[in-house]
Amino acid sequence: MNRQPIGVFDSGLGGLTAVKELISLLPNENIIYLGDTARVPYGTKSHDTILRYAKEDISFLKTQDVKLIIVACGTVSSALSVEPINDIDIPIISVVKPAAKAAINKSRNNKIGVIGTPATVKNGCYERTIKEFSDAEVFSKACTLFVPLVEAGHFGENDPLATLAAEEYLPEFKEKGVDTLILGCTHYPLLSDVIKKILPNTELINSGAETAKEAKELLEKNNLLNDSTSEGTLKCFVTDNIEGFNDNAFRFLGKDFKQSAELTRL
Amino acid sequence: MNRQPIGVFDSGLGGLTAVKELISLLPNENIIYLGDTARVPYGTKSHDTILRYAKEDISFLKTQDVKLIIVACGTVSSALSVEPINDIDIPIISVVKPAAKAAINKSRNNKIGVIGTPATVKNGCYERTIKEFSDAEVFSKACTLFVPLVEAGHFGENDPLATLAAEEYLPEFKEKGVDTLILGCTHYPLLSDVIKKILPNTELINSGAETAKEAKELLEKNNLLNDSTSEGTLKCFVTDNIEGFNDNAFRFLGKDFKQSAELTRL
Repeated sequence: MNRQPIGVFDSGLGGLTAVKELISLLPNENIIYLGDTARVPYGTKSHDTILRYAKEDISFLKTQDVKLIIVACGTVSSALSVEPINDIDIPIISVVKPAAKAAINKSRNNKIGVIGTPATVKNGCYERTIKEFSDAEVFSKACTLFVPLVEAGHFGENDPLATLAAEEYLPEFKEKGVDTLILGCTHYPLLSDVIKKILPNTELINSGAETAKEAKELLEKNNLLNDSTSEGTLKCFVTDNIEGFNDNAFRFLGKDFKQSAELTRL
Repeated sequence: MNRQPIGVFDSGLGGLTAVKELISLLPNENIIYLGDTARVPYGTKSHDTILRYAKEDISFLKTQDVKLIIVACGTVSSALSVEPINDIDIPIISVVKPAAKAAINKSRNNKIGVIGTPATVKNGCYERTIKEFSDAEVFSKACTLFVPLVEAGHFGENDPLATLAAEEYLPEFKEKGVDTLILGCTHYPLLSDVIKKILPNTELINSGAETAKEAKELLEKNNLLNDSTSEGTLKCFVTDNIEGFNDNAFRFLGKDFKQSAELTRL
């Protein structure tokens, strides 16, 4: 049993969709969240820069004495799948493998789609991971504008801009007969209703939610669960723009967010 | 007479629209360009962070022995209008004042519109500057998605997403009777054709182009023009993603761009 917090990070607010699932699955755990809002987005940056930022994010979480680090960012998870950081002495979980495995389990016709940032799709990690565990066909597409749309508040089911962007990116998955689509970026669950309008019969895999399930299993297996019976705390840090974070965090968490984030410099 | 280069910087590629005008007006000048592509965009970040990044950008250009610095970024220009950096010993020109003056000169009905990033519009610098020199009415609107749209290549006259975004942001300028609109972000000139579809009778002020004119005047007045008769050089530095820069720079420059950018770390 272990009362240390779980550390979660993302380039911005998207990773809070993983925190939402984590709170639901492990309500007694304390969580430290870091959003690198001074350098968001990561998904249009180069592999080397993403890796450099990820190392700084992880170093910060280590100063918070966390027992587990969750990389709640599809872009960073992709970069780490190619070049893992080996000198971390605490467990680290990324979104790629849990999401890939969930998609393999869900798909009935072995045709899996992946949407993500340009960096994630260029990296090809979801495809490689799915191929490692199955013989499914994989179709990937970068949805470059989805992150800016979500960050600008354009994600409601009837939002015209989000709908038009989805109409540009998604029809090819229907043409290919994809029955399961991985939302390979933690911002994308907010666009689920919009995506379902274009792909009504496709199972959507929420990579953050799948990773939260894997985190629970890992903590159970290693006897690291928090045995407290009181509700866990969520403490958030951002590298910029506290105001925007506090104004919008509730959308990602799906509930009121009363605590204020703290500013930190990486 | 002075053969030192002119330094120009922006968060990303947008500032190249100012470089385009600079090359046209001052073909014999050497230009050093810096795009902070590792931290782009600036327009959704806080004042303090924008200012911190701007200081680092300026410090880099000073190492290049420039005779003049052009802040070819509406967001940074706005931040500097509130909090100028005083310890620079070389002239520095920002886009705000030249664009504001050009709009005042162009407008016949004294109703001027301003579009920019969220940070620029929140800052209110264009409005303050216009009021300083005239009694014009000013209407401002943050066009949050214009930068991501341009960066993702969505700026053609018939691009559906760019058109829909313009339809969301711009009709109110027509309703207010605005006859002159400042493109308060150096990315926006690429959207001119899209903007003109919504506001066909509105004069568009290209803030980068106006700033290039002011740069020419300043160099003339201070006897700092390059007296060489050979064509000037353009040397570009980026903090990330050289490939993306080289692939897209020509769109902003309006001509082929053969030199490769160099990577620098700020």
